[in-house]
Amino acid sequence: MYAECMGILRLALAQINPVVGDLEGNVELIRDLIDKVDHCDLAVFGEMSLTGYPLEDLVLKPGFIADNKTALNDLASISGNCALVVGFADSDGENVYNSIAICYQGEILGSYRKQNLPNVEVFDEVRNFSSGSDPLNLFSIGGVNIGFAICEDLWVPNGPVESLVDGGAQLIVAINGSPFHQGKQQERETLVNEISKKSNIPIAYVNLVGGQDELVFDGGSFITDSVGEVILRSSRFYESTLVADLSIENKTTENLLPIIDISSTREHEGRIEPYIAPPLEIHEELYLALVTATRDYVLKSGFSQVCLGLSGGIDSALVAVIASDALGPNNVTAVMMPSRYSSTDSLTDAEQLIENLGIASIKFPIKDIHSTFSEEWALNLNQDLFGVTDENLQSRIRGVLLMAFANANGWLVLTTGNKSEAAVGYSTLYGDTAGAYAVIKDVYKTGVYDLARWRNDSEGSEIIPKSILEKPPSAELRPDQRDDQSLPSYEILDPLLKSYIEGDKTRAELVKDGFDTKMVDEIVQLVDTSEYKRRQNPPGVRVTQKGFGRDRRLPLVNRYEG
Amino acid sequence: MYAECMGILRLALAQINPVVGDLEGNVELIRDLIDKVDHCDLAVFGEMSLTGYPLEDLVLKPGFIADNKTALNDLASISGNCALVVGFADSDGENVYNSIAICYQGEILGSYRKQNLPNVEVFDEVRNFSSGSDPLNLFSIGGVNIGFAICEDLWVPNGPVESLVDGGAQLIVAINGSPFHQGKQQERETLVNEISKKSNIPIAYVNLVGGQDELVFDGGSFITDSVGEVILRSSRFYESTLVADLSIENKTTENLLPIIDISSTREHEGRIEPYIAPPLEIHEELYLALVTATRDYVLKSGFSQVCLGLSGGIDSALVAVIASDALGPNNVTAVMMPSRYSSTDSLTDAEQLIENLGIASIKFPIKDIHSTFSEEWALNLNQDLFGVTDENLQSRIRGVLLMAFANANGWLVLTTGNKSEAAVGYSTLYGDTAGAYAVIKDVYKTGVYDLARWRNDSEGSEIIPKSILEKPPSAELRPDQRDDQSLPSYEILDPLLKSYIEGDKTRAELVKDGFDTKMVDEIVQLVDTSEYKRRQNPPGVRVTQKGFGRDRRLPLVNRYEG
Repeated sequence: MYAECMGILRLALAQINPVVGDLEGNVELIRDLIDKVDHCDLAVFGEMSLTGYPLEDLVLKPGFIADNKTALNDLASISGNCALVVGFADSDGENVYNSIAICYQGEILGSYRKQNLPNVEVFDEVRNFSSGSDPLNLFSIGGVNIGFAICEDLWVPNGPVESLVDGGAQLIVAINGSPFHQGKQQERETLVNEISKKSNIPIAYVNLVGGQDELVFDGGSFITDSVGEVILRSSRFYESTLVADLSIENKTTENLLPIIDISSTREHEGRIEPYIAPPLEIHEELYLALVTATRDYVLKSGFSQVCLGLSGGIDSALVAVIASDALGPNNVTAVMMPSRYSSTDSLTDAEQLIENLGIASIKFPIKDIHSTFSEEWALNLNQDLFGVTDENLQSRIRGVLLMAFANANGWLVLTTGNKSEAAVGYSTLYGDTAGAYAVIKDVYKTGVYDLARWRNDSEGSEIIPKSILEKPPSAELRPDQRDDQSLPSYEILDPLLKSYIEGDKTRAELVKDGFDTKMVDEIVQLVDTSEYKRRQNPPGVRVTQKGFGRDRRLPLVNRYEG
Repeated sequence: MYAECMGILRLALAQINPVVGDLEGNVELIRDLIDKVDHCDLAVFGEMSLTGYPLEDLVLKPGFIADNKTALNDLASISGNCALVVGFADSDGENVYNSIAICYQGEILGSYRKQNLPNVEVFDEVRNFSSGSDPLNLFSIGGVNIGFAICEDLWVPNGPVESLVDGGAQLIVAINGSPFHQGKQQERETLVNEISKKSNIPIAYVNLVGGQDELVFDGGSFITDSVGEVILRSSRFYESTLVADLSIENKTTENLLPIIDISSTREHEGRIEPYIAPPLEIHEELYLALVTATRDYVLKSGFSQVCLGLSGGIDSALVAVIASDALGPNNVTAVMMPSRYSSTDSLTDAEQLIENLGIASIKFPIKDIHSTFSEEWALNLNQDLFGVTDENLQSRIRGVLLMAFANANGWLVLTTGNKSEAAVGYSTLYGDTAGAYAVIKDVYKTGVYDLARWRNDSEGSEIIPKSILEKPPSAELRPDQRDDQSLPSYEILDPLLKSYIEGDKTRAELVKDGFDTKMVDEIVQLVDTSEYKRRQNPPGVRVTQKGFGRDRRLPLVNRYEG
């Protein structure tokens, strides 16, 4: 094998934000870019860019598959001199495939079916798709032999990418629907760097962007050159279409794969210097993930305004700031619902935050409603309301009110519980968990503090009042209540939770890792027995390697105590 | 190949009700039967009988897999002259397999790993297990060459069962975790009948029994003889251990599979005439499914008592009867929470049902609480509460009260919504959907009437008062409200819903099937836009071929309108 400099391939990475099921709208998104990329040899869109991703059981509806093929034909019919590489759901009548189509000058000239289907964590692709098993091809676009891959195809050893490289590919183009978790971009770039270095060819990695239910796609599309260096990187969490001129080396091999000709070499005037977005700092990355997921869940659901209960505590404060950043302060209403146990400080802090953000607010004390419940309880049952029943009642009155505000005004309710609380069940079902989207459900309490501090720092002012950051956490559902009366400090609790939930460790293993035996027993039992609450919690964005929701599927009836 | 009469194999079908994760308890269940089956050659338990089924992501916890192997060793150590065939989670350090172990005289003498993993509908086995790929064996037990299969292995063409038959198996023993849906037993017997007839050997099909979250295993274990006739059938929905003496025909083949010897031929005194439970009538079958699932969810969750809101309507009436049958009338409390819009008839009907069943009751009018909410609303917001906001409020006050009763008394709340309502979103989130288990969530409204009538008929008296069966359905959340003001009659609606939900049809296909275009548009939109409610609904037992919950996984953000 030898290499020699050849032509220039002009490649556009089209990082778009499609909506699941919105075939017309997604075609429109792509169509809007056609003129812009007409000077390129090819424009690459993300995985399932035509349909949105993940489709889940929409794939099981034959009518949807038919409609998606019609949409693809519509798109192909308007394709011009730039080959459009889009993701769609192919089918052969019996099976459905997660696929790529190559549209050029009015026609669909080629396709590739994903071979490796992830069926772990949040992915159910074996449920919904069949694995592609056609012999591999290369596609000659702009005179360059390109091998295509779809997401998981990249991650498996001895997968199609190696065969494409061995078969003479001069460039690998991978389309992806790769959801965010903390540190994910680094994992992607490390992987692709290794493949590039090993295969001595450039790789273009195109991701989706935007929120879809529990997932947020963070973009960050990039190109590595033939020694694995990143030569182009798209911004994270925003749509963008970046272009690179790639000098492609010639490559001959004895085992050349069959080549499907799409388009021949074109002359390109001038040279485009590709943009390299700087990496994001860890807190900014996470914060943008939460903002993007929240914005897209609300807007893609057809809503524009939200409300949330603002207690004066750190969780609801952070959610208010995220909501305001995501939707604009005009679209957020903070609801203060003090009870007989709410401190004056809490109300003052909440009011200060509302002022800082410039969001709307409602103040609706629940004392009288709470009293009526208590009186009616005594009247009808001849007993007093007390203890956990009474604590939950206050939380549920607030839930009822938030839902009433949402019903009356056409708002969505955002919930404000964090991952530490969801883990140990430190929440009231139908109370503080009542709402449409749980913004920080996958952020541990210590992470909530980190984000709040980072947000203040990035603003350069105390947008979240200092006293909110400094007061001891409390649910304020009984006199002088504090979280640390029921739980270890979050600095101790969070690492234990992470190890149990994300690490799948048993009690014995946790104790061996140095956690206190009694604490392990208590916390593991709390986590296990709270599964029924989590099953009924609203969706929220996954930002760790194992979130609750579609990711961690445990039985409700489950007597394992290990 | 020729056949000739040989010996007698004494086979026990042990249809047990294990609890997921309860390794110690499940070993105990099996141990309790060891003496009883000691006179048999083998006793066969259902799929994953050692661990409970389905394990879901418990499989991802290495510590659990290790503990399940320890439990298997404990069980093997007490095995005697009857070979115990149990289901467990095998592993080779890297992968986990849904497996069979054969325990005999203190040792584990053989195992088989499931080859075909269902990853459709409610099943996620590709997520949790690896497919067995070891070469097939026969196991000689009591002098008979037996081929083993696990559940899905039976259902795939050209699967291991054909290879076992071709390889000389004289008997196929299949262990199953086959959940109920209406008509499922007939499907199983038809399938096994065909395999038996084709292969000319008997087949023993052993199922689990009992409820696990959204699934109910209905037992109905059976044996077909070599011409496909059912010669033994266990009862449905109850634990049982039935024994059959099988005359096994000799069979020679040129392609005999390797044989692992477990135990040699034994003499059996006398002959046991196997029992054949009569098939269940369709309503009885469904009713028993609901009773079993409800009982097991409550008891296996560690509760014994339940409450439910009893409105005087048909849905809550049926759920009250089911709860009373499942748990005993002493363990059920019906809560009447009349509002200003509740009719006197409703209350009278509810009281009559309470008397008929002999269950406890609470009467707790919500008028005053409702009024306080309205007054506070006016006071704090300067506006009136009205419309859907006010209707939902009443439902949510009831939800809050039911949860408070549950909190105060250690009860579980049963919810009473049916599948038609859940489909079109004719429910209030955190209101009538608030609770731990949704007993009839997979029964359409017309099916609710059928079951109520059947239950009265089977009792031979009007246990559910006639007026409940005859009054027009109403939520009673505004004056003179009736369901048919918002929805088509259920006789028209239910077939449309079934076709859309279970048939995965598009609007165009539904119209082609004869449904009214405008109705199709309205109902499809209601179903699609109610997904967010269903996502937060409590679990309930699946009794159709496509239930909501783990079975129908649609995106929340989903703009497909086809």
